[in-house]
Amino acid sequence: MLKFKITSKDGKARTGTLKLKHGTIKTPELMPVATKATVRAMTSEDLKELDSQILICNTYHLMLKPGADTVKKLGGLNKFMNWDRPLATDSGGFQAFSLGLAKEHSTGKIYFPGNKEILKKGKSIAKISDKGIKFRSVYDNSEQFLDPKRSIRVQKKLGADMILVLDECTSPLSSKEYTKKSLKRTHRWAEECLKLHKTNQALIGIVQGGHWRDLREESARFISSLPFDGIAIGGSLGKSKKDMHNILDWTIALLPDKKPRHLLGIGVVEDIFEAVKRGIDLFDCVTPTRIARKGYAYVTPPLGTKKRKYRIKITSTKYKEDKKPLDPNCRCRVCKNYTRVYINHLFKTSEYTVYNLVSYHNIHFLLQLMRDIRKSIRKKEFNKLKKKWMG
Amino acid sequence: MLKFKITSKDGKARTGTLKLKHGTIKTPELMPVATKATVRAMTSEDLKELDSQILICNTYHLMLKPGADTVKKLGGLNKFMNWDRPLATDSGGFQAFSLGLAKEHSTGKIYFPGNKEILKKGKSIAKISDKGIKFRSVYDNSEQFLDPKRSIRVQKKLGADMILVLDECTSPLSSKEYTKKSLKRTHRWAEECLKLHKTNQALIGIVQGGHWRDLREESARFISSLPFDGIAIGGSLGKSKKDMHNILDWTIALLPDKKPRHLLGIGVVEDIFEAVKRGIDLFDCVTPTRIARKGYAYVTPPLGTKKRKYRIKITSTKYKEDKKPLDPNCRCRVCKNYTRVYINHLFKTSEYTVYNLVSYHNIHFLLQLMRDIRKSIRKKEFNKLKKKWMG
Repeated sequence: MLKFKITSKDGKARTGTLKLKHGTIKTPELMPVATKATVRAMTSEDLKELDSQILICNTYHLMLKPGADTVKKLGGLNKFMNWDRPLATDSGGFQAFSLGLAKEHSTGKIYFPGNKEILKKGKSIAKISDKGIKFRSVYDNSEQFLDPKRSIRVQKKLGADMILVLDECTSPLSSKEYTKKSLKRTHRWAEECLKLHKTNQALIGIVQGGHWRDLREESARFISSLPFDGIAIGGSLGKSKKDMHNILDWTIALLPDKKPRHLLGIGVVEDIFEAVKRGIDLFDCVTPTRIARKGYAYVTPPLGTKKRKYRIKITSTKYKEDKKPLDPNCRCRVCKNYTRVYINHLFKTSEYTVYNLVSYHNIHFLLQLMRDIRKSIRKKEFNKLKKKWMG
Repeated sequence: MLKFKITSKDGKARTGTLKLKHGTIKTPELMPVATKATVRAMTSEDLKELDSQILICNTYHLMLKPGADTVKKLGGLNKFMNWDRPLATDSGGFQAFSLGLAKEHSTGKIYFPGNKEILKKGKSIAKISDKGIKFRSVYDNSEQFLDPKRSIRVQKKLGADMILVLDECTSPLSSKEYTKKSLKRTHRWAEECLKLHKTNQALIGIVQGGHWRDLREESARFISSLPFDGIAIGGSLGKSKKDMHNILDWTIALLPDKKPRHLLGIGVVEDIFEAVKRGIDLFDCVTPTRIARKGYAYVTPPLGTKKRKYRIKITSTKYKEDKKPLDPNCRCRVCKNYTRVYINHLFKTSEYTVYNLVSYHNIHFLLQLMRDIRKSIRKKEFNKLKKKWMG
């Protein structure tokens, strides 16, 4: 079940309502990532207080621990994690990349030479073939096999509102030849998932094709031709922001207007603006919580700038006696109650509490940004808001 | 400022009200420990939701990080940590033990041979002399010196409602000769602290003397003779529960009725009952949060038994598919919202969220126990409650 209604447009940017099993959400929206059935360091009560509309969990991790059957026995993922609002699950396909070529190539979905924030080079523990993905479990090193059948079966048992087809997320350093071959497989798996899908969960197809125009267009046409409830755009997204924007332009031009569009795994401020501008409705990203644990807090302009990624490094000694909240413009509970010096102190003393506080603020920051973006589109002022943020 | 009023008695057990700068608390009560200005993995909002009346922070840690001057500049500890209710600080004296002889002797305040829950043998980083305590900082290994003057000065700057005199907590494995010598010093420091004390903070004297009757009695008489606002009983508490009960009996018999009595660093269920029975009003203990992080959740009888320390090990595989809350009798937010299987899962996947959830439940458990104890004393049913719990 998925009913998508576009409620306003400003250029290609659009607001909408997306009806799912557990409720109706407003788009554009960002899904905080609850990989293992919890957003790291956050309680479900925190996320409700933040008015998060939808979360996304991870099939690969949950099928290994606690196992799909356990979750099903307990009444599904919503009950399991105490979340009565909409949920999504990815298919496990992204882990074919993150545990495979991402390690071998030492890259994220977009390849920036010298990017320090990505994985170190390591040994791949995922191998893909036309039949499926052979994984090693990160928990007990057991051999695991994921194919469209298992992915759909697991996601059915988990029971999220919105599920994804199994695909291969290629590496931005993969060759065109490899990417082309992989795309064929991804398309075949998409058809297979569609055939196997028998629940009232919304099924989302995924466009791949790396940073090659012909492959992205071929994929956009093919996935659009199938009766999916929504369409996601998967990585790799090339070697620069420009590549990513091109990929979005080529792809979205060929997508049906009436289906919701999800840009997978992307969710930093700059990218959100560029993607919403091009007609993206959904995002998911681990960044707000991941950077929180590393000591970065999001801040709004003018303090937050594109160049500094709208972040301050709160562990810096310059905040050692700073009585201001993380972001003086922010109205979240953490900014109302705590100072930079206190948060700096909790980092210096390695106190777990701080992961909760900064994650809470960072998620608030992005959800508030999404609320502001929706409002701006309704008022036909999206470009004004974008300019205010991006200059 | 400290006004203590006994409001009801049942045998030697008593309820009271304790008026402090930031409010009036009901006793007997347990203070969750916020060593470095946070109760580990908990927010101040969590602790207010739990209706915690008072917290205790640590002078040694806070004078090193962020430093007493920083805290003072920010308006004191209450403001610093977003806590508008009463606060206590210990004097730093306990660290002379925990960083000193506790490591050399590999013991806690009560010595149980083979106790696995205590520190491993290690090198002492605290040396005590008549002048004061020479410490190594656990943060940067710098040499630090703490004497009555610095302890009182630091505690004044921190600005808690209730502060403690500098003492030496001896080891249960120290000789009588050493303990006697140490007691003289502790008494001299108590007088010194009293002379130096010039604020409206309540100043608490500490009775020491190990597990020797004559020393404990000497100390109880001496500390009682001084104009402290309240009296604490410090460790060591001997080599058995029996030793601890004897020490309480000998000491309390000589304490003035009208001053509040704090049993330092003790707070497991069995000890709370035995101490309240003998007339103790205040407790502080890291156990609820420390055991939470190790996977232990408190449970009420009949599931919780004295033999099993009123705990279940939630990481055990037997809870892998258990839909019940941590404690089926508990009404805390965590027990209302989460199951054992989910909490078991969060431990197995090393998710930070779980430290918050189980700490929250464990603190609720103890604060609820204190509420039930106060109620039972008012109704002259303390022994009935004790029997229900302890058999």
